Amino acid sequence: MLLLTLDLLGIFVFGVSGGLLAVRNQLDIVGVLVLATATGLGGGLLRDVLIGAVPPPALADWRYLAAPVAAGVVTFVWHPAVGRFERVINVFDAFGLGMFVVAGAVKAHEAGLGPVPAAVLGSITGVGGGVVRDVLVGRIPTILRHGELYAIPALAGAGVVVLGLEVGVAQVVIVFVGAAVASGWRLLALTRGWTAPLPRAAGTSGS
Amino acid sequence: MLLLTLDLLGIFVFGVSGGLLAVRNQLDIVGVLVLATATGLGGGLLRDVLIGAVPPPALADWRYLAAPVAAGVVTFVWHPAVGRFERVINVFDAFGLGMFVVAGAVKAHEAGLGPVPAAVLGSITGVGGGVVRDVLVGRIPTILRHGELYAIPALAGAGVVVLGLEVGVAQVVIVFVGAAVASGWRLLALTRGWTAPLPRAAGTSGS
Amino acid sequence: MLLLTLDLLGIFVFGVSGGLLAVRNQLDIVGVLVLATATGLGGGLLRDVLIGAVPPPALADWRYLAAPVAAGVVTFVWHPAVGRFERVINVFDAFGLGMFVVAGAVKAHEAGLGPVPAAVLGSITGVGGGVVRDVLVGRIPTILRHGELYAIPALAGAGVVVLGLEVGVAQVVIVFVGAAVASGWRLLALTRGWTAPLPRAAGTSGS
Repeated sequence: MLLLTLDLLGIFVFGVSGGLLAVRNQLDIVGVLVLATATGLGGGLLRDVLIGAVPPPALADWRYLAAPVAAGVVTFVWHPAVGRFERVINVFDAFGLGMFVVAGAVKAHEAGLGPVPAAVLGSITGVGGGVVRDVLVGRIPTILRHGELYAIPALAGAGVVVLGLEVGVAQVVIVFVGAAVASGWRLLALTRGWTAPLPRAAGTSGS
Repeated sequence: MLLLTLDLLGIFVFGVSGGLLAVRNQLDIVGVLVLATATGLGGGLLRDVLIGAVPPPALADWRYLAAPVAAGVVTFVWHPAVGRFERVINVFDAFGLGMFVVAGAVKAHEAGLGPVPAAVLGSITGVGGGVVRDVLVGRIPTILRHGELYAIPALAGAGVVVLGLEVGVAQVVIVFVGAAVASGWRLLALTRGWTAPLPRAAGTSGS
Repeated sequence: MLLLTLDLLGIFVFGVSGGLLAVRNQLDIVGVLVLATATGLGGGLLRDVLIGAVPPPALADWRYLAAPVAAGVVTFVWHPAVGRFERVINVFDAFGLGMFVVAGAVKAHEAGLGPVPAAVLGSITGVGGGVVRDVLVGRIPTILRHGELYAIPALAGAGVVVLGLEVGVAQVVIVFVGAAVASGWRLLALTRGWTAPLPRAAGTSGS
């Protein structure tokens, strides 16, 4: 029950980021709801399709659809207020990221994938929704651009989980460690303005 | 046989809309055929992948590939004439939308999905091809933008079908009601210029 | 062993093209690695998801992930040098295309698909990675635009393979013929500047 609540909360927070991007692109209510849902559920759906877990749980339990739709409605109605809380949302988003990559890595590992693919699928679970969101509004996904550190903490958290499971650490322990690594690193990157390295020559022009 | 004919006709009409967009983006014959096919089959493929109905029927029966390819060829050769019939195409497209959402909702319901996800998958069947089409030419999908009402009639039609099936209405009846709701509402929106609501502040700038 | 080596080489070359595009869009290390991986594995993943071969082999064998990551790292570190070898990369890419479409067509045929869908899936295996790559940086996929001939040689090579398998030609023979058709035609198109036809009127404005 706690896990489900945390999971739905993560989806809600991701959904708000999708809804805000829709509002800023002057999309209408359909755009806000679709972007909130695609952002909240996209990463998990990508993972489920790739490991063959279809129909995905997100389509079997109505609460998984209700969470991003609620996020979309909240953003649609109160977006000026929601936009002012962007720093708070970024913090929640970092916690959502930790939860998503851990859940994704555990699920991929249980599906019998090797450690490297399981870590990759865990990361995809965390960052995939944001990629779908950005592609839908025609911008290069933020995780690919030079700016904030996001995908590397995700991969690190997923990697810690898979490594722990492989060497036999109890799942209840390793999921907390993995989530702490992903969320903690992401929060530090937010606070300190850490970024990922650029290729040499391109560094002079910026983006 | 009637159902198959209607289905292929719907795919053809959707394919024409993809082909026209390709011509307008100065794509070559490959672009026209790929966009026609992606628009005609994209929604159904998305649904089939999400419910695990793979390989999708659209890949098992050659006629499902022939229909959008024919649409692409027709558009490639006669696009100035085809473009002049855009109002007629919009009407056919509205009928195609009704057929797609109804077929998608019934299939998702038969796959054992609950009512809400089945209605969502029905809508995805109707609007998914257009989303793929728009993403491929790098524009924000029309269904997300403030403009014409498209996704809401789709969801309404799919919702009516699923609701009817849940309460035990005969499938042969409810599919007609659902298609009439989706296509009829879409046609009314076309004629009357109905749009979906925008978030408050964004309404002042437009798109 | 030879087949695996050739396959990984093809993925590596495709990965380099993704990595170079990332560098030219001033993406950071994450962008370079993700684009290299998406380009190298995207076509095969699309095929596997569509025929239900999940989890895809590319996620079950770590070498399939190592190849595009290596391509990304090489491009990230030595991109000025790599960029100078673009003509050489184009030649390798043509060989990669031949291998991909042949492997994709054989796999789709073995999965029980009919000849036309199997040829289409073979082509998707060859060109899908490039489409994903281009969508991720927000440009219209090169295979759709008027420019170089790429998708038609791919479809021709896949078609030859499927036709040969249908009429009973030995697989070991037909895969070489199919790869030669796809790669050879692509190489000729590169050298001679062949392009695919444009729709009539659009030809006057260009892109």
